[in-house]
Amino acid sequence: MARDERGVTPQSEDFSSWYNELVTKAQLADRGPVRGTMVIRPYGYRIWELLQAELDQRIKDTGHENAYFPLLIPESYLKREAEHVEGFAPELAVVTHAGGKELEEPLVIRPTSETVIGEMMAKWISSYRDLPLLLNQWSNVVRWELRPRLFLRTTEFLWQEGHTAHADEADAMSETLQSLDLYEAVARDIAAMPVVPGEKTAGERFAGAVRTFSIEGMMRDGKALQAGTSHYLGTNFARAFGIQYLNQAGQQELCHTTSFGMTTRMVGGIIMTHGDDKGLVLPPRVAPHQVVIVPIGRGEAADAVQEAARDLARRLKVAGIRAHVDDRPQVSPGFKFNEWELRGAPMRLELGPRDLAAGTALLAKRLGDEGKIPVSLDTAPQLLAAELEAFQAFLLQRATDFRESRTATVNVWPEFVEAVETGWASALHCGQPSCEEEIKTETAATPRCIPNEAPAESGTCIRCNAPSAYGKRVLFGRAY
Amino acid sequence: MARDERGVTPQSEDFSSWYNELVTKAQLADRGPVRGTMVIRPYGYRIWELLQAELDQRIKDTGHENAYFPLLIPESYLKREAEHVEGFAPELAVVTHAGGKELEEPLVIRPTSETVIGEMMAKWISSYRDLPLLLNQWSNVVRWELRPRLFLRTTEFLWQEGHTAHADEADAMSETLQSLDLYEAVARDIAAMPVVPGEKTAGERFAGAVRTFSIEGMMRDGKALQAGTSHYLGTNFARAFGIQYLNQAGQQELCHTTSFGMTTRMVGGIIMTHGDDKGLVLPPRVAPHQVVIVPIGRGEAADAVQEAARDLARRLKVAGIRAHVDDRPQVSPGFKFNEWELRGAPMRLELGPRDLAAGTALLAKRLGDEGKIPVSLDTAPQLLAAELEAFQAFLLQRATDFRESRTATVNVWPEFVEAVETGWASALHCGQPSCEEEIKTETAATPRCIPNEAPAESGTCIRCNAPSAYGKRVLFGRAY
Repeated sequence: MARDERGVTPQSEDFSSWYNELVTKAQLADRGPVRGTMVIRPYGYRIWELLQAELDQRIKDTGHENAYFPLLIPESYLKREAEHVEGFAPELAVVTHAGGKELEEPLVIRPTSETVIGEMMAKWISSYRDLPLLLNQWSNVVRWELRPRLFLRTTEFLWQEGHTAHADEADAMSETLQSLDLYEAVARDIAAMPVVPGEKTAGERFAGAVRTFSIEGMMRDGKALQAGTSHYLGTNFARAFGIQYLNQAGQQELCHTTSFGMTTRMVGGIIMTHGDDKGLVLPPRVAPHQVVIVPIGRGEAADAVQEAARDLARRLKVAGIRAHVDDRPQVSPGFKFNEWELRGAPMRLELGPRDLAAGTALLAKRLGDEGKIPVSLDTAPQLLAAELEAFQAFLLQRATDFRESRTATVNVWPEFVEAVETGWASALHCGQPSCEEEIKTETAATPRCIPNEAPAESGTCIRCNAPSAYGKRVLFGRAY
Repeated sequence: MARDERGVTPQSEDFSSWYNELVTKAQLADRGPVRGTMVIRPYGYRIWELLQAELDQRIKDTGHENAYFPLLIPESYLKREAEHVEGFAPELAVVTHAGGKELEEPLVIRPTSETVIGEMMAKWISSYRDLPLLLNQWSNVVRWELRPRLFLRTTEFLWQEGHTAHADEADAMSETLQSLDLYEAVARDIAAMPVVPGEKTAGERFAGAVRTFSIEGMMRDGKALQAGTSHYLGTNFARAFGIQYLNQAGQQELCHTTSFGMTTRMVGGIIMTHGDDKGLVLPPRVAPHQVVIVPIGRGEAADAVQEAARDLARRLKVAGIRAHVDDRPQVSPGFKFNEWELRGAPMRLELGPRDLAAGTALLAKRLGDEGKIPVSLDTAPQLLAAELEAFQAFLLQRATDFRESRTATVNVWPEFVEAVETGWASALHCGQPSCEEEIKTETAATPRCIPNEAPAESGTCIRCNAPSAYGKRVLFGRAY
């Protein structure tokens, strides 16, 4: 146990220890018995469910339908797309025995489902009228991780994977960018994570993709977290699995396919975007308990206070607020205050006999220097609803300001080196993989993305002075 | 292809072919590439999602919290509970290689999660104040099936598995029965499946359970489908995994645990409870499209009719009805009528130029002999909402009547033999496994459950004339 059994190592002192201790102590997740696996505890899973509901709705609203494909994929399927198998082979978990016998062909546990979904798309699509085919799946996938970390890199993780087939490149690219937009919106509006959407350089592309896009968020240690990816797969998988259609002129053509995914890693992103020395700070829209009510009082006063707390919680729930009464008798109010601070509840309401007599409760926000504010019990629902909205907006603004303060537009190498020590560098780059590799070796920074919105600019490479590529600046940073 | 490419073999002619063809032709599911696996297509997955949402809400309302535990379990965990491993060993899929290496200990893909959840419960529970611990997980599990059938028995299936820990037997048994009630309510109120809740005999118990309860539904071929199970596990898993707590007197005690599960098999149950010769019949509460609107009209009239159909769909949606406009230009109205009959849409609205001029649409229900009924476009939302409610109730009543007509209370062996040819037999039984086995060999019928609500009764065994057990009648039938 580090220091105080209840607290965590301050973020400012050791970010990595802070993260590891917090995930466990806030009861978000635990390590599973198999190395690299994760047990997502109810508090952490609820964050995922809230995020998932928002993402699912947006995926449906853009015309996608949910379906479910098998976990186990014949090993031979992965080999049909050469880059795909090369990228995933080192991470595969392989089933060799089942039903008490050795299998004729080993099966891999899906690391992603392009192959098995491609096989089925080929059966379902025959004409241009069947296009676009817009599918999504909520599932678990397994990728054997050498350096696992809870939520960020686990051997098994949960995600949604969208898979679509289109008549041509233009339609498939428009889908690819629409999915990226959707991720940006969910990150920004729900997780209060400002992210930069952009394209990956060749070295960071998904195995088998023609173009890969991602959203990149800055964590409070200045490192980048890739928080969602969207891929234009060209006709690579269509060729490998025979996904073709009869066009209006009666000719067979290959489909253009896409895939896109967002994972339980987002929970790690939320922790590292908003947390502080005291622990978690949860954006209201993903907080399991948006308001925690702590009744205070012993003996005779206890009953009335408890009842008032439950009544207040009921009224908050009617107003659409996720309220929780912490009425555990075995721990003190002070213990509860610390615990809910550690666990990141956005708002806390303290309710004692004197407050009750005055018709008020004391509001303490998880962040801010206002101290405790008396709130009328009568108008608490409206007030809290507004406070939660404001808190959500405040977190997004704070994270945006932080990112901007840690992002430097750099034009000479020493500035680049300094910038990626604590944040991101926006720089011109030649686009050569060997130059990317040198930068990585020297500074641990990699190109996170070529931001979609960056203005046109060209010149010479920050590192090697060769002519710059991409027609715009590239964002570099150290990454999770 | 059987007969007509669009239709299916009539149910009355060959139930099994009817089922297999229907699942594929109604686009509910397809076989996956690996033997015994299933691809759940959007139409089938939507039925599962609708059922899942209802079940999830009820599980939460009864105080359970969702969490997520790893897919991969060390092989040694299963061996800690002797009956558990004996029951599941033949069905396990085993991962022997991962990350390019042979694993030191093989991992099994969860066939169910008592073991890994037990391991974690032991870490999380220390005092009586931590009880009851009420968890639920939505996940996929793998059990190697020798005779797979889509939805009914697939190598991988989706389910929820509840896992709870309690201070004593009384509390755990109350949970076990509460979960069974919950399943009965979801089957009845959502899937319109009347089911009989009861206890399993020793031979049909879950591997590792002290008592197993199930809900049993009757399919339209008279066979029984076990549609959900709830287990009181006693202290078996608590002992194997060290799930213990300090009681109020300061002594260590073992927890009493339970588990309960409902699966994608329910989709198969819905198909076989309500379907007929023409295809699926979906209860409105699980129908992806409750009302399908077919605009009819060519040339000039087409635009106005299409627009009116879309407007009607919008108004139905506002009224909370899942409406779908089938505006595919390439197929005829007649083709659409047949297809939506096959796919079981509860209500169809036909809208042609003459209907539009008269301000009406023609309503055709999936079942019933009323023919097509003109419906005012103005009042369609209210009318359809009421019709859907009535249709839901009608299906439950029809299924209940069917079950009652096929269930016989029998007191002599020839009546038993006759009853289980076409349905269920309610009979007194001695409770001896050897006698159960003889009955199974001779008639293919097994004890489905000892109904919770059966009146007290005793006498002699229907088969061997030994004194009857259980103090009540047992329900026998052939089962899926």
